[in-house]
Amino acid sequence: MKTEAWTSVNLKESIENLCKAARQAARALARTDAAHIDAGLEAIAQELEKRKTFIQEENARDVEAAEAKGTPKSTVDRLRLNDKAFAQMVLGIRQIIALPSPLGAVLSERIRPNGLVIRKKRVPLGVIGFIYESRPNVTIDAAVLCLKAGNATILRGGSDAFRSNMALAAAIKEGLHHAGLPEAAIQLVETTEREAVPVLCRQSDYVDLLIPRGGESLIRTVMEHARMPVIKHYHGVCHIYVHAAADFDLAERIVINAKCQKPGVCNSAETLLIDEGAAKEFVPRIVKALRDHNVEVRGDERTVELAGAALRAEVIPTTEADWTTEYLDLIISVRVVPSLEAAVAHMDKYGSHHSDAIVTTDEAAANRFFELADSSALYWNASTRFTDGFEFGFGAEIGISTDKIHARGPMGLEELTSYKYVVTGTGQIRS
Amino acid sequence: MKTEAWTSVNLKESIENLCKAARQAARALARTDAAHIDAGLEAIAQELEKRKTFIQEENARDVEAAEAKGTPKSTVDRLRLNDKAFAQMVLGIRQIIALPSPLGAVLSERIRPNGLVIRKKRVPLGVIGFIYESRPNVTIDAAVLCLKAGNATILRGGSDAFRSNMALAAAIKEGLHHAGLPEAAIQLVETTEREAVPVLCRQSDYVDLLIPRGGESLIRTVMEHARMPVIKHYHGVCHIYVHAAADFDLAERIVINAKCQKPGVCNSAETLLIDEGAAKEFVPRIVKALRDHNVEVRGDERTVELAGAALRAEVIPTTEADWTTEYLDLIISVRVVPSLEAAVAHMDKYGSHHSDAIVTTDEAAANRFFELADSSALYWNASTRFTDGFEFGFGAEIGISTDKIHARGPMGLEELTSYKYVVTGTGQIRS
Repeated sequence: MKTEAWTSVNLKESIENLCKAARQAARALARTDAAHIDAGLEAIAQELEKRKTFIQEENARDVEAAEAKGTPKSTVDRLRLNDKAFAQMVLGIRQIIALPSPLGAVLSERIRPNGLVIRKKRVPLGVIGFIYESRPNVTIDAAVLCLKAGNATILRGGSDAFRSNMALAAAIKEGLHHAGLPEAAIQLVETTEREAVPVLCRQSDYVDLLIPRGGESLIRTVMEHARMPVIKHYHGVCHIYVHAAADFDLAERIVINAKCQKPGVCNSAETLLIDEGAAKEFVPRIVKALRDHNVEVRGDERTVELAGAALRAEVIPTTEADWTTEYLDLIISVRVVPSLEAAVAHMDKYGSHHSDAIVTTDEAAANRFFELADSSALYWNASTRFTDGFEFGFGAEIGISTDKIHARGPMGLEELTSYKYVVTGTGQIRS
Repeated sequence: MKTEAWTSVNLKESIENLCKAARQAARALARTDAAHIDAGLEAIAQELEKRKTFIQEENARDVEAAEAKGTPKSTVDRLRLNDKAFAQMVLGIRQIIALPSPLGAVLSERIRPNGLVIRKKRVPLGVIGFIYESRPNVTIDAAVLCLKAGNATILRGGSDAFRSNMALAAAIKEGLHHAGLPEAAIQLVETTEREAVPVLCRQSDYVDLLIPRGGESLIRTVMEHARMPVIKHYHGVCHIYVHAAADFDLAERIVINAKCQKPGVCNSAETLLIDEGAAKEFVPRIVKALRDHNVEVRGDERTVELAGAALRAEVIPTTEADWTTEYLDLIISVRVVPSLEAAVAHMDKYGSHHSDAIVTTDEAAANRFFELADSSALYWNASTRFTDGFEFGFGAEIGISTDKIHARGPMGLEELTSYKYVVTGTGQIRS
């Protein structure tokens, strides 16, 4: 699956050249106006439409290969660029074109006592390395978002989508060329060699930021090797805490939605914490509802006990490992906790601080939860599934940061920028 | 110089325990109100005043040891906590107490079409590891700033200031204790073992952010070993570009200030770029002025040529290495460039993107410079020496970030925080 130019022998040199070209392109992009960038995005959209048949053919070969090696059906489905997914991908570009450019905005202005005028202006980050897994439409989403924010991007996709990504990257390149933008503004690492990731991680002279989005082994490799800033888009062990004063209808609706609506994503719920004050009534009710939705229920001792004679056999006793596991599947762990503080302590100890919800009719309890819990997004009486750049109204999303610096939670266009201070004086010197 | 508890044998365990305690303290701090934190800061200030004699005695032993091993005088001077420096250090705490707390501010609020109310609230980062060199007053500055922003801090100072830092840390601990704040809110790595830095860099489970501030070898070690986010506070190769349309009086004043007022700091100028259109008149003039201020002048061929018969012998020809060197001394490199674009290209190739200035009477040229150059701070007709949290009006500064993510340029209280989204619903689920 390697192209001629990319062999293990010259991998290091190839990636270094890619990064150098990206740095050059980033310099040019920083000087390109927003309308020209939008024209480039439109040219990419048109080029994708023109090459639709070829891209889908290449995608079909990826899908076939994945099926042949026994890849789980849910993963294969994510890989597939059918007509609907293709149309959505192209529509996504046009939605991003329609968003205002984040660049050039003056974020603050201060006039100092000595007369210096200090303006903080939003500028592109520079070169972004984006390392991700499987879904090919992410290739387009990420490239387009980074370009809209004025950045050059190096994409390293998953090997399962390699042919699809190559076909998409060719369309991007052609689109950039037609629009008179540097072709190195968006480049794909054109090899499936695993060693490409560590090599890319060492290009701190040319890459300003790495964004890894994926599972544990990817994140571990990047953290081990990266010598430049990294913003991780990692896993979500999300909790729903049902408070003693919860509305149980609402609680059931939220738990079922957060677990079942799309179990394979990071903002779905993995653990249900039920307050002792709600447990007697709510445990049997929610165990039944979850089982009715084909959810495997794993419960602590108290949950098993309260499930009742009819349902007890349906609840698998939890082990310590359950509390830290991101199932990404129709499985949930359930624990009865003595208090709100205990619920937060559980989240602190086992959770990923991604998205956590409280269900209660008691506003003071909700505010206490908001204060005590340290998650990128906290919900009161709503599903954790809303942690998403579109749902938050950003108009776009490159992922959901699980880090606390620069960007936390959904990461949109503004989070793909930096700033610089421009200071206007009249000869001020420092004394 | 090691205390009993810190031996190479248990270094790893000791640092891990320190970090775990810091994580606990951070949880408590996140739930502490701003007035209580300010009371803790005041208690630290009072404890320092109470222990002034002891601290200065310990500092004198550091100074003596540094002198005995032949440390340069300028470094020894930075190490010294004389009465003036001590008073300034304590005053600094009270200035920070007087600043508004950055915490709890609502940074944005969105009401979504589905009725969800999404608030972005500023919160502490958590645990910050601060790794720095020599000056002992930085120990207090950093600890106090991080605490004001609600963070727990682990301090790793330079070995030259070890006794001073131990004495300061003891005062901090006592102050925290008196104020009823967790003593682990501010902890010093109580060993001079070099291995402590790599060990600290691996504590990503407990440390949210590392801030290294120092020279190349420190930064290299941290970037090699860190497994958590890092914001570097590194070197400055700053430029003054004198445009063809410059006011030469003003240009001379700015160049002399940026080079001579405090040559040992990162925002002082290291390279002077003179536009060909200004060179004939300005080169001999500025070479003379610099020599009059005891500055060693290193010039490219054109500078040597234009310096004139009387001054030519005073100019040392540059080598390629000069353009990337942070002299931190009364030395400057001078180059004649054909255009503004060439000046920016020089800065792109050799500079550190820290602070760079243009001197011109031509507003269009200044704006072009602001647009093309990619530095954390760009100046028009002012000295680069203003890149500083106090001069920028932040009221404080933990350093000057040379990174582009999270914080760029002067880093004050707000840059020591993160945010979380708190979302209020009425039972919204995702469809």
